[in-house]
Amino acid sequence: MATDKQVKIGIVGGTGYTGVELLRMLSQHRNAKLTMITSRKEAGTRLDAMFPSLRGRCDLSFSDTATADLTTCDVVFYATPHGVAMADAPKLVAAGVKIIDLAADFRFRDHTIFERVYKMPHSCPDLNAEAAYGLVELNRAAIQKARIVGNPGCYPTTMQIGFAPLIKSGLVDASHLIADCASGISGAGKKAETDYLFSETSDSMKAYNVNGHRHQFETAARLGELTSDKIGLIFAPHLMPAIRGMHSTLYARLNSKGLAMSNDQLQALFVHAYQGEQFVDVMPWGSYPETRSTRGSNMLRLALHRPQDGDTVMVLVAQDNLVKGAAGAAVQCMNVMFGLPESEGLGAIALSP
Amino acid sequence: MATDKQVKIGIVGGTGYTGVELLRMLSQHRNAKLTMITSRKEAGTRLDAMFPSLRGRCDLSFSDTATADLTTCDVVFYATPHGVAMADAPKLVAAGVKIIDLAADFRFRDHTIFERVYKMPHSCPDLNAEAAYGLVELNRAAIQKARIVGNPGCYPTTMQIGFAPLIKSGLVDASHLIADCASGISGAGKKAETDYLFSETSDSMKAYNVNGHRHQFETAARLGELTSDKIGLIFAPHLMPAIRGMHSTLYARLNSKGLAMSNDQLQALFVHAYQGEQFVDVMPWGSYPETRSTRGSNMLRLALHRPQDGDTVMVLVAQDNLVKGAAGAAVQCMNVMFGLPESEGLGAIALSP
Amino acid sequence: MATDKQVKIGIVGGTGYTGVELLRMLSQHRNAKLTMITSRKEAGTRLDAMFPSLRGRCDLSFSDTATADLTTCDVVFYATPHGVAMADAPKLVAAGVKIIDLAADFRFRDHTIFERVYKMPHSCPDLNAEAAYGLVELNRAAIQKARIVGNPGCYPTTMQIGFAPLIKSGLVDASHLIADCASGISGAGKKAETDYLFSETSDSMKAYNVNGHRHQFETAARLGELTSDKIGLIFAPHLMPAIRGMHSTLYARLNSKGLAMSNDQLQALFVHAYQGEQFVDVMPWGSYPETRSTRGSNMLRLALHRPQDGDTVMVLVAQDNLVKGAAGAAVQCMNVMFGLPESEGLGAIALSP
Amino acid sequence: MATDKQVKIGIVGGTGYTGVELLRMLSQHRNAKLTMITSRKEAGTRLDAMFPSLRGRCDLSFSDTATADLTTCDVVFYATPHGVAMADAPKLVAAGVKIIDLAADFRFRDHTIFERVYKMPHSCPDLNAEAAYGLVELNRAAIQKARIVGNPGCYPTTMQIGFAPLIKSGLVDASHLIADCASGISGAGKKAETDYLFSETSDSMKAYNVNGHRHQFETAARLGELTSDKIGLIFAPHLMPAIRGMHSTLYARLNSKGLAMSNDQLQALFVHAYQGEQFVDVMPWGSYPETRSTRGSNMLRLALHRPQDGDTVMVLVAQDNLVKGAAGAAVQCMNVMFGLPESEGLGAIALSP
Repeated sequence: MATDKQVKIGIVGGTGYTGVELLRMLSQHRNAKLTMITSRKEAGTRLDAMFPSLRGRCDLSFSDTATADLTTCDVVFYATPHGVAMADAPKLVAAGVKIIDLAADFRFRDHTIFERVYKMPHSCPDLNAEAAYGLVELNRAAIQKARIVGNPGCYPTTMQIGFAPLIKSGLVDASHLIADCASGISGAGKKAETDYLFSETSDSMKAYNVNGHRHQFETAARLGELTSDKIGLIFAPHLMPAIRGMHSTLYARLNSKGLAMSNDQLQALFVHAYQGEQFVDVMPWGSYPETRSTRGSNMLRLALHRPQDGDTVMVLVAQDNLVKGAAGAAVQCMNVMFGLPESEGLGAIALSP
Repeated sequence: MATDKQVKIGIVGGTGYTGVELLRMLSQHRNAKLTMITSRKEAGTRLDAMFPSLRGRCDLSFSDTATADLTTCDVVFYATPHGVAMADAPKLVAAGVKIIDLAADFRFRDHTIFERVYKMPHSCPDLNAEAAYGLVELNRAAIQKARIVGNPGCYPTTMQIGFAPLIKSGLVDASHLIADCASGISGAGKKAETDYLFSETSDSMKAYNVNGHRHQFETAARLGELTSDKIGLIFAPHLMPAIRGMHSTLYARLNSKGLAMSNDQLQALFVHAYQGEQFVDVMPWGSYPETRSTRGSNMLRLALHRPQDGDTVMVLVAQDNLVKGAAGAAVQCMNVMFGLPESEGLGAIALSP
Repeated sequence: MATDKQVKIGIVGGTGYTGVELLRMLSQHRNAKLTMITSRKEAGTRLDAMFPSLRGRCDLSFSDTATADLTTCDVVFYATPHGVAMADAPKLVAAGVKIIDLAADFRFRDHTIFERVYKMPHSCPDLNAEAAYGLVELNRAAIQKARIVGNPGCYPTTMQIGFAPLIKSGLVDASHLIADCASGISGAGKKAETDYLFSETSDSMKAYNVNGHRHQFETAARLGELTSDKIGLIFAPHLMPAIRGMHSTLYARLNSKGLAMSNDQLQALFVHAYQGEQFVDVMPWGSYPETRSTRGSNMLRLALHRPQDGDTVMVLVAQDNLVKGAAGAAVQCMNVMFGLPESEGLGAIALSP
Repeated sequence: MATDKQVKIGIVGGTGYTGVELLRMLSQHRNAKLTMITSRKEAGTRLDAMFPSLRGRCDLSFSDTATADLTTCDVVFYATPHGVAMADAPKLVAAGVKIIDLAADFRFRDHTIFERVYKMPHSCPDLNAEAAYGLVELNRAAIQKARIVGNPGCYPTTMQIGFAPLIKSGLVDASHLIADCASGISGAGKKAETDYLFSETSDSMKAYNVNGHRHQFETAARLGELTSDKIGLIFAPHLMPAIRGMHSTLYARLNSKGLAMSNDQLQALFVHAYQGEQFVDVMPWGSYPETRSTRGSNMLRLALHRPQDGDTVMVLVAQDNLVKGAAGAAVQCMNVMFGLPESEGLGAIALSP
């Protein structure tokens, strides 16, 4: 057991939703020693003044990003816009500090895809080459020894966990995958934009970015590593009127090999794929995972369907976009990187109702 | 102009959400003379006691279903469970009273499909044979001369309006259609079931009945009338945390004929198909219809997309499930059946925000 | 009847929620000829591009505030921040154009209170002196002949309608009134502020500005005109997680004259006070008005209670903050000012559910 | 330290919202050994089949209430309707089992008030006489030695914590207290009633039971124990469209002794009253506690205001109605009764956003 270890933690950019979620989880993590949290704009502000939910539970104030010395940390989480982590990475890595980036800087094995999708040059392609992709269930070994982890996007987590067993086994037409997904509004972050006002988003639903959401590129690239087939993925994100929660409805057409599988065999494939995983719940065949069954927890739940016993298999996936889809996954990576129990700090049961 | 005509109207079963919506619209309809509204359980109750929104606008009380003489009406709307309208139909039709059923009794041209899907015998197959399907935009001529109209289900309206131009033109693989849809909770009606409590449905999303929802059969059967190809339809309904609103994301694979079409040509196909329709809004290519842009109105909005300019065309459709998806469509049918201006009583602009 | 009259209408600042509500109501007003709508930032933009709910119902584009000639209108509505209407007023009044300001410029009989509360000098105190306060039910005669109307704030409407009969009759201790009120988030307008994001306001409630909300001053000043007693008013506004709706729970202590009244007499007092008013619904004693029973309509509903038959009378008041609390009241004023039927354009029944 | 102790726990009636909350907290309680949970209707059902949020975290099934032997437990929680706990109490107490009733059976020191308010005879007035009232902050000593605890109602917790310091110190007119409160819909429980459907409660607000809510009697009786003055309390509950959360806005008129206090002294009074309390957060003077800052946590937050520096002091109180207002308070009582750390099992930080 490693429960005496104290990991010194820094957080850069903790004023958004993934920041406060990191704080919520790390405050209850027995091996986490929260050392500093920085903000460009909020230096000096007490965290619990910004997040009253932390009153009585967190005594820290924001440090100034410009002057904070992150090299004293064991690990630094980046809950920042894209581009910040890679700017700091060389110095921190040189100082022996590990990095977990919740933005996109290290999500792409091929940094030129990052550059094309995020429209900025990558400042440290060499470090990107060694970075691990932080989807623990599909990539645990690489994360264990990584110095840098690029935490996956929220949608890509659901799509990869859901499609991976089918693609790895070569059971579906990988060139015609469809992912119809919905996210709670917190996925847009804590931005002062009229689009995400209560009065603009409540009691309504809409699709967005169906042609070219950045998570499509990330997912397609990563799924492509699981097969020699060409990946074709339509990704249709929607905004739903919920604070948290992400629901992905995945459609894949079974190929001849897949059509030879019974429903029981498909179910067994998933049960086996995620056996022993604490944070993936393969529900009984034909179940309907609700996003609220994951609210505030690091659990992702999924269930299989095959409408009219036809040639299409559906995977329904639910998670909390801010936890398993962001901050929880990051803490899970930290636990793996430091040899801690993988569930440490992640014990919260979903808030129901 | 027909604006002096007064149509005597009866409503059977007006205690639910489609009932109160009929009342809202008919109270503002210049040619509607609301004559009686019946309820098994609420005979004697003032309507505005049940629906305070009607206080000052509606002086009626519920009549007893058992004793009310509906044969004095020109038309009777059935906002009841399945099976009620067909029981009354022979007597009313004999008396020269027209029927608009908001339930499923007259939605299927082939009554044996109704019997299989709704698990009850059809009591008047002969009348079913002459009934018109109340989707005005695709079936106006038949409705004009109908004595009985079977109003479409809410989901089927979005799926048919969205898929019809593609299927009629033979541009897509009709055997592999996917409709990923979400409905506001009011779609479940005003039932005392824990599943639809605020605390069970708010801030969450889930799929349901992806294998065998009754609207799948209705839609597949009606789409089948538009083509000689075999229809294959996966219909995946979801519950979203909104009172009203229905969003359907439709996916169809272009066949070789379809692949020869430019995006402009696809758009033109839809613009032409719904030219002159007052209640179908073909938005510019690449738009994102929001359900709230239809809240309380009889407008259905749709927009086309073609992700990565590939072989899949998407149609995004939004409507108010209780209006264009139910009561508004029924009033639209009445207007067509009685030669009234099609938009009479349907002038409400969507409530925004 | 005056139904042939066409009133030429201008709207200044129609990009917010009261703007789109004015458009919704005026588009259905038989005597309204919408002539121009201006915006500093959105000149040239089609209204229905900003508000898709208006697609197919409104062909206007925004004019440039700087160059639009409002003097060709019969009346101009100001749906702007405070201070804009009074800047334009002298010129428009000179040109014979009437003004209805939905902001606060003309809400105070004593312009020095305006200056103190809104922290800006009043640029036309003389015009302010002749302006009428646009609460039709309490001030119809003055509005009929007014050239300028200051539309009341949303909260003040509920407080005045609720308290007025009690204060006018001298039945309560006017120096210890309490108004505990809650507003839907749309009351904060369409501002790009993080405070009103969905994720910040949904599923939560809080009070704000209990010491010094500007509507406290407006209400106290206007209630003071109904009595020679000193007005003392505690006004505690709250934000509730709804788009629209305002609920005010009013508490007044009965004085000796009031204690001599039976509950029936108190009820009769209110029934009599609002007899003939189309937009005030005095519900039966002991009722509970729900905000949703006013959603989208110009109706204000109220009900009386007297807990434990003690010395405190409560008035529960519900309205749609954007309609009777803002745009609907403004249209009602216009109708009164131009001798039109008072309910013209205001016929929408509340959207329920 | 008592951290090795294992308390054997039974739960009667765990199918509702307080039941699942008890399970959520006790599953994370190091000294809790969940032994049995009973249900009349759900015997044999796995808990995680009813509450998918518990999948992977709870292996229990419901036992049959009729046959379960609760005498093997150390403590039994009653998350049942009123009347169940008192029926079991004599037998359990005789067997040395402690009882924590989340219903009202043991909330009244004077069982005749219970009988009048809840309209049922009390079956064990003698045990009621020894029962402790489970508001730990005001009653810790009695709870420590109690065999039976009557957990307070949700609203009464906020009213007592908020009013107690003022009443104990004799600073306010105790005969004219006003509590204007709002509760999330989960407060109505998981009942199959149309009144609490999403479509009936979302996007709306209303008051209810302002004359005679049962919590008025409980609160008045308990506040009466803090003073020799007569208690007069108007309690106006409202339903707000949130799952969880309770916001109470309390008004008390300062008497001459109170008027001699400065605002700083009033603040100091509260700070001192709740010094050392882990679950009462006295926020800085003039703060606005939001219910969401307590979501899922056992923290109650309050703040003082004095509008216009007049003679009325306001206390704003926020809590999670299901946690500090119900299940959390019950676990807190258990900890006190068994000499465990008071915060054990109650460490969850509020879910924000």
